[in-house]
This record gives sequence, structure tokens and C-alpha cells, in this order.
Amino acid sequence: MSTLSMSPDGSAAPQSAARSASPAQSPTGDPWLLTPGPLTTSPSVKQAMLHDYGSRDAHFIAINKRIREQLLVIIEGEEDFVAVPLQGSGTFSVEAMITTFLPRDGKLLVLVNGAYGSRIVKICQVAGLPFTTLEWPEDRPVDPGQVDAALAQDAAISHVAIIHCETTSGILNPLKEVADVVARHGRRLLIDSMSAFGALPVSAKELQFDAVAASSNKCLEGVPGMGFVLARRSALQACQGNCRALTLDLYDQWVAMEKTKQWRFTPPTHCIVAFDQAVTEFVAEGGVAGRGGRYRENCRLLVDGMRALGFQTLLPDALQAPIIVTFHQPGDDKFSFQDFYDRLRACGYVIYPGKLTVADSFRIGCIGRLGGAEIRGALAAIKEILAETGVTQTAPAA
Amino acid sequence: MSTLSMSPDGSAAPQSAARSASPAQSPTGDPWLLTPGPLTTSPSVKQAMLHDYGSRDAHFIAINKRIREQLLVIIEGEEDFVAVPLQGSGTFSVEAMITTFLPRDGKLLVLVNGAYGSRIVKICQVAGLPFTTLEWPEDRPVDPGQVDAALAQDAAISHVAIIHCETTSGILNPLKEVADVVARHGRRLLIDSMSAFGALPVSAKELQFDAVAASSNKCLEGVPGMGFVLARRSALQACQGNCRALTLDLYDQWVAMEKTKQWRFTPPTHCIVAFDQAVTEFVAEGGVAGRGGRYRENCRLLVDGMRALGFQTLLPDALQAPIIVTFHQPGDDKFSFQDFYDRLRACGYVIYPGKLTVADSFRIGCIGRLGGAEIRGALAAIKEILAETGVTQTAPAA
Repeated sequence: MSTLSMSPDGSAAPQSAARSASPAQSPTGDPWLLTPGPLTTSPSVKQAMLHDYGSRDAHFIAINKRIREQLLVIIEGEEDFVAVPLQGSGTFSVEAMITTFLPRDGKLLVLVNGAYGSRIVKICQVAGLPFTTLEWPEDRPVDPGQVDAALAQDAAISHVAIIHCETTSGILNPLKEVADVVARHGRRLLIDSMSAFGALPVSAKELQFDAVAASSNKCLEGVPGMGFVLARRSALQACQGNCRALTLDLYDQWVAMEKTKQWRFTPPTHCIVAFDQAVTEFVAEGGVAGRGGRYRENCRLLVDGMRALGFQTLLPDALQAPIIVTFHQPGDDKFSFQDFYDRLRACGYVIYPGKLTVADSFRIGCIGRLGGAEIRGALAAIKEILAETGVTQTAPAA
Repeated sequence: MSTLSMSPDGSAAPQSAARSASPAQSPTGDPWLLTPGPLTTSPSVKQAMLHDYGSRDAHFIAINKRIREQLLVIIEGEEDFVAVPLQGSGTFSVEAMITTFLPRDGKLLVLVNGAYGSRIVKICQVAGLPFTTLEWPEDRPVDPGQVDAALAQDAAISHVAIIHCETTSGILNPLKEVADVVARHGRRLLIDSMSAFGALPVSAKELQFDAVAASSNKCLEGVPGMGFVLARRSALQACQGNCRALTLDLYDQWVAMEKTKQWRFTPPTHCIVAFDQAVTEFVAEGGVAGRGGRYRENCRLLVDGMRALGFQTLLPDALQAPIIVTFHQPGDDKFSFQDFYDRLRACGYVIYPGKLTVADSFRIGCIGRLGGAEIRGALAAIKEILAETGVTQTAPAA
């Protein structure tokens, strides 16, 4: 890995005299991924993939069982919920959840304050499912009061979909308050907790919901390749025949898995054994409290350090989930995001572009197998890069 | 790994005095997977997964590009075809192919001689797509003459779907002959080459077809977690809006990948870098000719050896694809498949149950990172197990 990066005009980027000769790297020699995923996983999670398992192997079947049980423990849902893993990225699980749970005569209210809410709208449009939306700006949380009013006004709405942490901005939506409103109206809640699950609590004892979707590859720190939906058994039992795609039908996936203990279609065996290891490490870290605690500390260090450098966060601290932080781009004419990204990558830290529709921004993730040392390292590299590139106004343009 | 296995009554299986103390194992210490996948992959393929890549990483993007280009070389389709990889198991890619390519006013003729043909029927039923079928017994190949007659009779049929090698039995269907019939009638051909792709030729120069679906994890010897569809560009360009599932829409997947060089939704990064290594090893082995040659030799050794032990294959040699072989279960009352499977597993060889609807059978695969030594080892273990269990009549019951 070279410490040189190329500037946009093709010349080698100048190296600061102060910068150390070698870039930072993870124990497996990779740059640190300060992204919403794929993210940095532990060496032991990756090493679990060094073996081939047959899909009918007794050891592999025991691993599946253990994962499904552990996922239910995370939501305190052992009694009333079932875990249905699904091949593919997290969006496959979200689409499976929406299209399996919404009955043909149902109607979905989608709460949208970013790209992942919009994606659920797109899923409904493509599937031809009846839906309506409530929308907020990307830097504003979902408003439970407006949800209350919408449910009071439209008796046809059978289900509500909410994004737990909207990765577009990094905002935390008021899950508990919305769940209470939905329950009071006797409607059903579907939660996309993709980027938050495992770091922020989703408890079946605290919240009323029918299903929550997440993936192997976010705060549970497995590798990408599978998602899962944790579903209220009584609700899933009523979903036969809803889904119009064979592979995305969670009812079928669940029934087949209960019956055979195997996956309906070829499982991503290596991803699954890595996920088993990841869940073991998650439990060892103290579950949601431990994992969330480390991420909150990462987030605090990051936000404090970036503010000390003059950067401004999109969100006030009260709305910020400890998952990924959106920063306004510096107003300085000398700042170029691509150059900044490339230089930081050359130092061993990978960040993420912005996804806001309203302002120039970039994002830095707090999740994955990393801690204070890596956040401090990234901050030190950012400080050096600002000096190298002569960027002095880190606050956004007025 | 213990050499002891448990018999159905829970007692330890007796070990033959002749059997070596240690079971056979792959270089990574796993049993050999004589199955249709997940199968035994090379150590280097698995080792490629020891690194984390960001989905926007330049190196990762270069890997994606290389894989997509190499897949087109395999079908000699560089000019007119495009490669569209998709998250999930192979069935996700088959469903994506069927539901993306069949227009709303189209009609699919599904050629069925096993479970994978039936699965395409199920996909059509679930999606509500117009279809009709031609069916043959599991031990009979698709008959091009009947396809010809069906197409002559029903002008509404726009597309035909065929399974290249039907893994249910291991039968090879007459792809070239069917493709010629379909082309002569001016209809479009969709090929499920899941278990054969990479071992048996599918050439765009020899056959006329619109799309072929396969996966990372069969004869290309990658790990499971993604599939792909190789699609005629001009045909795919006409498919916008056909698919009713966002994640399975190959048109969208393709357009997004062309535009951004990235995957639409989180890619299974580890599976993809393993697949890149697998494709490199496939090319080094001499492509379809080399890979297919090794599998044919595996198949010949297996069939000859099993016949020498008295077993009978379901299929005559002329219909047998060198992928997976179906054997009739021995007629001997002392034979129990589960016990046979467990003992063979304890010797280091994993086989596959039968999937025939018409006869008791089991299957042994010829594919994956294994050769003559492993086939001979499995045959030696089978011979010992027959002796241990006192099974003398290996031919099926009359």
C-alpha cells in the first residue's frame, strides 16, 4: 500500500514531513473502514470463512440454529418472535419484510426522512403495493405527532414503516414514540433497523412491532451477504401468499427452515459461519450495551475532534445516532472531497461521501471493529491533510 | 474431527480394522464435499476473504470489472452480452432473469424434467406470469421435437426456459438443439446453467439465447453468496419496468452498475473477492475445457468405481452430465441411507441425498476443488462401509 495518492491532475500528492511513513492498517493489513458497511470486521470473523461447509452438515445446521436463537435474544423476543435469515444484502431483507407483511388489501404508511425511507417507497411502487408517505427534511427526525394525525385520518393504513437510524444523515428516529402511536391506533409496525441493530436497543418488551429487518454486516460486525427479519410469529403466520417473489417470501423461507432446519435455497455458508463468530464476539462485548457503548465513545471522540478542527456536524447531538456522522463540507475553495478522500485513504482511513440532497457533505462512520485509537488516528490524519492542502476554513460556506 | 459416527440407534458405528485412523480431509481440514454446492473450494479462494474492502474502494471496483469481463469471455459474448452479478443464491439470479426478461404481455414455455424446472414454474406462479410447460420424467432429457411442436402450436409463447444440467438427476439437456428450435421460431431462450456453467460450454457464438444464469459457487468454484446473469445487451435494454421486485430487477442492477461501477445495494465483498480468485484459477486451469475435463475424469472414475461395487446409475452414460451422478439405492435390507451418509461423512466424504420423486436414490457430485485421489478415496471408503454394514446387494431392488 503506497502512502502516495494522486491528486486530480495526476501529480503525486505531496507528503507532509510530519506524516509517518506507513499508513494505518487493520490487523489484516487493510485500511480502516469508517463507513456504514461493508465495515472493518475482526480477524477471527474473517478466519471463520477459511472452511467449507455443506449446507446439510450437522455442524452447519447447529450454527444456523444458534444464530437464529441469539438474534431473538437481542430483541428480548424469544417467546413471540422468530428469526428468518435471508440471502442477499440488507435491502433484500427490507423488501422481503415489506412485501411479505403487507397483505393485498393493506396499505403502508412510509415515514421518510432520507434515502432509506425513499427506498421503501420505491419497493412499494415496484411491487404495486398501496402506500402513502409522510416526509421530513433529511436533518429532521420523524414526528410522532404527524404520524398520529395521519393514522387518525386514514383508516385504510394497516402498516407503518420506519427507518430506525437513517444512514443518509445519521439521524436517530424516535422509534419508541412512533411505536406507541402505531400501537395505540391498532396498526402494525415494520422497522428497518439496518444500520442501528445491535448498537441501539430494539426490544420486543419495550416496543410493539411486527417485524424488524437488519443485516449481518452493520453493528453486528459480520461480513455482508445476508440479512434477517425478526418477525412476530402470529403476524408471520398470516402472511402466506402475500409476497410475489419466490426468493423474497419470508413466510416460505420460515416454514421451510422450521421444517428442514436448512435454508430453502443455497445458503451463503461462509458468510453465515462468519456471522456466527461475529455474534459470539457481540455477546462477549456485552451485547447492545457494550457494542453501543463503544460506538457512542467512537462517535463522541469523532465529533469532538472534528469540531476542534472547525468542522460542523449536520445534526445537533440530540439527534445524532452513534453510527455515522454527517459533516458539512468546508467552505474553503481549496477543499476538494475527492482529494481529501484519496489522501485519507492513503493514510489508511476510508470515509464515505455524503448522500444529502440539500447540502455538500461527507460522512464518517463510527461502527465496525475499531475504537478510540483508530478515531484518533483518523483525526490526526485529517489535521495533517488540512495543513498539507492549505485548507483553513473548515466551517461550511455561509 | 472424530472418525466415529453415530448409528441411528445412537450407538457408535463400528470402525473397520482396515480403515485408516484419520478421515480424509481437504487442505483446510474439512471433509470433501461431493455435492452440487456449497462445494470444496481451494484454500486460496477462501484466503482471499481474509480482507475487508469498502464497496467504493478502487481495488474492489477493479475486481468487479475484471469478473464481469471474464464471465463474458467464458460465453464468447464480449461483443453482444453484458454481465450482471446479483446478491443471493443462484435461485435469486434465476428468478431475477425470469421476472426481468419476461414482458407483461409475454408467455414463458418452461421445459421441466426435474426440480429446477419446477422451480421456474413456481417463480412464474408466484409472480403471476403467464406460462405453460412441457414435462418429461426425471430420467429423460428435454425433447427438442416436442418443443418445436409446442412453439408451432402456441404463437403467444415469447420465451422458453431450459435447465442446462438438471441437478435433480444429473441429466444433461440438449441445449444446442433446443436453442436452434427456439431461434427458428423467433422466440427468446433463457438458460438456467447453474450447475453446469464453467464445466460445459455455453457459447454465444454457437447458441442463440437472451440470457444465462449461474452462480459463483458451482463449477467456477467460488463460495456461495452471489449469482450472475449474462444477458444479451439489446434484450436487456428492452426490460425496463418488467420486474416487480426492486432487488431482483436486473435492468436496474445493470444500469446502476454501468453508471457508478458499483453495486446498487451492499455487495457481498468477501464473496466477490473470493470469486475473483476462483475465476483466476478457472482461467489457469484452461477454462471450460480444462475444468470440464477434470470433472469428466472425476465422473468417469466415480461411475466406473461404483459400478464395480455393483451400484447402478439412474442414467445411461450418454445422458449423464459430469456434474453430479444419481445412483439407485441398494436393494439390500441392511442398507440405510442415513447410516451410509454418516459413515461416509466420518471418513471425510460428504455426499448428497436423492431428489427423485420416482425412486430411492442418492447423489455424488464430481465438482469442486477435487480430483482422482479424492474420488478414489471416496470409493475405497464406500467399499469398506459396505463390508462393515454387511450390505451385499448393491443393485436396486428388482
